[in-house]
Amino acid sequence: MSFLNGDTVGYDTENNKAVFIDQTLLPSKYEEVFTDSYTEMYDAVKTLKVRGAPAIGVFAGICVAVLINKLKTNDKEEIIKELDFICNDFEKCRPTAVNLRWALHKMFDEGKNSEPAKIKDNLKNLALKMIDDDIAVCRKIGEYGAELLKDKNSVLTHCNAGRLAAVRYGTALAPIYIAKEQGHNIRVFADETRPLLQGARLTSFELCDAGIDTTLICDNTASAVMARGLIDAVLVGCDRVAKNGDTANKIGTSAVAVLAKHYGIPFYVCMPFSTFDFSLENGSQIIIEEREGLEVTDYWYKERMAPGKVKTMNLAFDVTEASLITAFITEKGVIKPSEIKKYMSI
Amino acid sequence: MSFLNGDTVGYDTENNKAVFIDQTLLPSKYEEVFTDSYTEMYDAVKTLKVRGAPAIGVFAGICVAVLINKLKTNDKEEIIKELDFICNDFEKCRPTAVNLRWALHKMFDEGKNSEPAKIKDNLKNLALKMIDDDIAVCRKIGEYGAELLKDKNSVLTHCNAGRLAAVRYGTALAPIYIAKEQGHNIRVFADETRPLLQGARLTSFELCDAGIDTTLICDNTASAVMARGLIDAVLVGCDRVAKNGDTANKIGTSAVAVLAKHYGIPFYVCMPFSTFDFSLENGSQIIIEEREGLEVTDYWYKERMAPGKVKTMNLAFDVTEASLITAFITEKGVIKPSEIKKYMSI
Repeated sequence: MSFLNGDTVGYDTENNKAVFIDQTLLPSKYEEVFTDSYTEMYDAVKTLKVRGAPAIGVFAGICVAVLINKLKTNDKEEIIKELDFICNDFEKCRPTAVNLRWALHKMFDEGKNSEPAKIKDNLKNLALKMIDDDIAVCRKIGEYGAELLKDKNSVLTHCNAGRLAAVRYGTALAPIYIAKEQGHNIRVFADETRPLLQGARLTSFELCDAGIDTTLICDNTASAVMARGLIDAVLVGCDRVAKNGDTANKIGTSAVAVLAKHYGIPFYVCMPFSTFDFSLENGSQIIIEEREGLEVTDYWYKERMAPGKVKTMNLAFDVTEASLITAFITEKGVIKPSEIKKYMSI
Repeated sequence: MSFLNGDTVGYDTENNKAVFIDQTLLPSKYEEVFTDSYTEMYDAVKTLKVRGAPAIGVFAGICVAVLINKLKTNDKEEIIKELDFICNDFEKCRPTAVNLRWALHKMFDEGKNSEPAKIKDNLKNLALKMIDDDIAVCRKIGEYGAELLKDKNSVLTHCNAGRLAAVRYGTALAPIYIAKEQGHNIRVFADETRPLLQGARLTSFELCDAGIDTTLICDNTASAVMARGLIDAVLVGCDRVAKNGDTANKIGTSAVAVLAKHYGIPFYVCMPFSTFDFSLENGSQIIIEEREGLEVTDYWYKERMAPGKVKTMNLAFDVTEASLITAFITEKGVIKPSEIKKYMSI
């Protein structure tokens, strides 16, 4: 029995539980986890059981609603104290994606501005609204993107910005799904995305599951595939975009963007408009998460694949310069880097 | 007890055996294999127990000498028939590197032009000369390269073109070893090089073994490391270079070259002069080996890391356009792509 029914995260309001697919088990095992434990929630995001910028944001909203609704007390001061702790602490879990912070701040403000008797219900309703909004936003991204892909037949993507990175549809893969609904079959080349293999495990899984023609390649093969003329467009998601258009996304995205420019292929970043972080002038101000070297040398393998003495540098994200980006595909439309400023006041 | 004593391949003339390090076992196990079986020799090259363009060439020479010296007969016609079979068949084993073909043709010509009584000795002596020549050539490459690195302190390399890819010193790593002899400590960033992890397993192993400061990164991290200003030069090896300078090397090399150009970093290809294949006008004529998709989805892993339905494209090599290459570092000196034609008659 599936509670999520194809979605990636959900809110079991009847039992007051946050629900998620444990993505570290994919593709060999599909498991829905129900939880009201903060430790388990924090761990789920930290260890990438739930990952992908939009999914993390919505999941954090659900988690806050569950945790506050679990409280015995109805005293506003006590609730706000708890809310304050959760929202501050949870944010530290993964520093790069703006959505986590955005969702936590929204939940905190909602709680703070609620009448005492309504806090719990208001937080629950806001979390449910975040779910609905994410689905609507991703569908809109898909529609705008599908319009651009009309005459394209082959797309390269990096990491996973599909339905597993959002509630439904995803961001970078939404145009593929909507194009399919419209009768266009787009072929996808998926970078495996080392070290955590989101492309091999997640993108390949969800695209094959949807019956889309998918070819998995090593990250270092993107250049040869582009050189052979096999790619018409690149679609990626992102975690945070500065005011000037510099874009943080999964490590290796900037390499794909440099290659796309070299081979004359359009490079699109697909994202909810809320991924713009107008508090940042440019990409140098985006904090880049560094993770354990063991992910590179040991994780997934039968035995360690590098000598004990070697150092590692395991950056989880990189910054793609705005000049390499053809456009951002958002629910508000397709925005060129030079047009971002126009949208700042909207 | 080590027969090879730090070298990668060797010729045990006393027992008429070809000797090699089984590189598929590195870094966890160091094992020297002695063989006079053609099946085992062919398998060693096919399955990358012996790999790296110069090493494959010299190893093929040694194998031919061992196999011919093993023959009971001294009849020239019979020997040439056997020689002809081996040289034609062995060449098919790996199509991209020119060195394999070059060495086999040299051995065949030597046999064909020898007096009947001297064929066996002549082939043995030519194989031994190939070993000595390779060591001398790589040392020379190292000396020219070290000159260029004088004021550089950090190098990025892709795949393994170190001592494990040649008999001794290697090609791309020779300048690092010679610089160290001269008192310069160069820091190396090593791309792990999916899917077979030659960077993680072999480059990291031999550099750490030599006490060189080595940082292992995922292939997709090269862009971020370059963007941070951490790389002063890129050094790679190669398998075949066309007359116009287009260069075949391990998959991903062309991506590193595009990135190096974007970030303004010099990109050097280190190789024996014999890697030029003047019979080819440009890179489009180089045959690119495609290997099993299982190397991408299953190999090394505890369990399969991709869904069963996904396709794969596992190219073993790619072609780097001549315009992206700063220079070729050879035993004849440092040659810019535009200068290749000058050298064709030398």
